[in-house]
Formats: sequence, C-alpha cells, structure tokens
Amino acid sequence: MATIVTEMSMSLDGYVADPSDGVDELFGWYGNGPVEIQTVSDMPPFRVFEPSARHIRETMDALGAVITGRRLYDITHGWEGRHPYDAPVWLVTHEAPDDPPPGLTVITDGIERAVSEASAAAGDGIVSVAGGLTAQSCLDAGLLDEIWIDLVPVLLGEGIPFFPGPSTAPVHLKDPYRTIQGTGVTHLYYRLP
Amino acid sequence: MATIVTEMSMSLDGYVADPSDGVDELFGWYGNGPVEIQTVSDMPPFRVFEPSARHIRETMDALGAVITGRRLYDITHGWEGRHPYDAPVWLVTHEAPDDPPPGLTVITDGIERAVSEASAAAGDGIVSVAGGLTAQSCLDAGLLDEIWIDLVPVLLGEGIPFFPGPSTAPVHLKDPYRTIQGTGVTHLYYRLP
Repeated sequence: MATIVTEMSMSLDGYVADPSDGVDELFGWYGNGPVEIQTVSDMPPFRVFEPSARHIRETMDALGAVITGRRLYDITHGWEGRHPYDAPVWLVTHEAPDDPPPGLTVITDGIERAVSEASAAAGDGIVSVAGGLTAQSCLDAGLLDEIWIDLVPVLLGEGIPFFPGPSTAPVHLKDPYRTIQGTGVTHLYYRLP
Repeated sequence: MATIVTEMSMSLDGYVADPSDGVDELFGWYGNGPVEIQTVSDMPPFRVFEPSARHIRETMDALGAVITGRRLYDITHGWEGRHPYDAPVWLVTHEAPDDPPPGLTVITDGIERAVSEASAAAGDGIVSVAGGLTAQSCLDAGLLDEIWIDLVPVLLGEGIPFFPGPSTAPVHLKDPYRTIQGTGVTHLYYRLP
C-alpha cells in the first residue's frame, strides 16, 4: 500500500516561504554541498551534503506518484507531466487547465480521487503531495500518512505558514521515527497516528 | 563566561501557545513520563521520560540566573524571587512593580543591564531568558547565545509565534549542536553565530 507523504522545507519559526513567497532562505541546503544529484528534469543538479543526499536518493527511489494543486501546477506547468524525481503527476483542480502536458492526470472531483489513483500507481511506494494547500486538504480529509519537515535553522519572523490552519487542529503526530542531521537542515520524519 | 539561552516548547508549526495563550498541547512532555523531578518551588514535580529528565537536570545544574519580562513576572510574581530551577531572578520592566519579592532584582534601564548583571551572577553557567518578548529583545540586541527548542509533534494551526518578528530577521542559526529525542518532544539546541 502506498504511503501518502508531504515534505516541506520550513524555517525554525514555522514558515515555508517569506512574505514575498521567496524560498532562498529555505532551499539553501539543496545547493550547499559537494554531492551532485541529477534529476530527470533539465534543472541544474542538486549539490548537497551526504546526509541530505541519502534523504533525497531514498525519496527518489521510493517515489511512485506526485499530487499537486493548481498553484504549483501553474508555476511548473505540471513539470511537463513528469516530476523531476521521475514520477507521474496528478493535478487536483476545480477547473481543468487548457493545455495539460501529456502524462499528467487532471482530477476535478476532489483530493480523494487523486489520492486513490496516485496510490494505485505508486504500489508500495510513496505518493508525494506537493504544495501547502493540497497537503492541507489531504490532511483535513485524513488521507495523509506522513509529514517530512526539512527544518532550516533560520528565523524568518514572518512569512507563509506550512499549514495555515488545518480544519482538524490540533493535529497530533507521533514523535519523529527518523531524524537525519544535514548541513543547513534537519530532516524530520513524522507519522500521523 | 555565562551562556545566554532562551528555551521554549514549540509546536511543529511554530507556535508557543494557542490563540488563548494555552500551553496544554505544548507542555504535555513535562508530565507524561515515569521520572520524577522535583523543583525548589511547591509546584508538583515534573514526570518525564529519561531523555527529557537528562535535559532538565543538566539545565538545572547549569542554571545561574533567570531574566524575565513583566508579563511572566505578573503571572508568576517573579517566582517569589527564586526560579523553580533554583536560580535568582532579574526582572526587566519599564516601571518597577509595587511589591517585588525579596531576592528579585528589578532592572528598569534595559535588557543590556539585566544580561550584564545576570551573567556576572551566573559565572560560567547559564542565564535563561524567559518569555518571548524578553527573549526577542535579547535577540534583537545581539545578546542571545543559544536557542533551545522543545519541538512538540503537534500542529496547532494558529497561535502565538515564538519570535513575532525579530528586528534583525532573517536570523541565521547554526545547525543544532545537540538533539535529544524524548517522548512527545524533540529537544533541539541551536547556537547563534
């Protein structure tokens, strides 16, 4: 059975982007190290320290499907139908886009359907839910299995919160079942009960 | 030389209290375990798991002075002049209270003076800065050495942020130099550069 996961780089004070939606302060760990990791996209390779390389490689190996919302879709054009970690993409949206890339599946009748289809495609692997609002609707629907936080040692003071108010708050997670200390980031793996 | 530290129990989404200033969701780890730790106050002992007991005992042993702001003073009456971890208390306030308890030092001319006096009293130990606003003024003044986060695996969705906008943001910390995994809490020790 697939594991439904959302992962986010987050500042120590709980923000996933600065007030202008900038992520430079939070994504530094993807480019601060000596280990090169090439994705299937044409973006430059990640350059990370070994602990983070392990985290990324394992994620890439296990990833079976990606679910995204409309906002991230519009920014990335759905990664042209194939996520950089080499997985097919499901888009959850109210209205289908005009020119979805081949390989991308458009879902207009809710997150449950997207999770169901993506899970079937992922087998025993991981379904990654990308984008805060999509992750939150997944959380609210009780469909999320794990939350992975890439905790970055910076205080932003203000910005965009990870979960801007889950409908089911407070949401109790279990203690992290794994912690990887990287350089400029602490990878924390949490399971939902 | 003393180390100036602030410590706070924080939700995974960056809140140190719920919107009503409640901390039940965040302080659970102080009372969920089998190891009893008695403070010098007449409050009931902590009941924690051993990893957190180690963290608390070490803090108690090293603590040389506590600095608090007016808000926490008013709630605790300055712990009657002696912090439960057995350390003298400095109060930073604009206006001296009417009935400060014996043993408490009132500082009305700024955080720098409080840090200076408390540091002298603490020797090579720890000065703990209690209360978010006081910790923030300490951070803003460049006087803070370490931030200890007791990260609690709960999403509150809304609440009171730890540092509601440091004047020097973004504030870059070093990676945690120590991590203790407890039960219902992850203790993360961060140094400021």
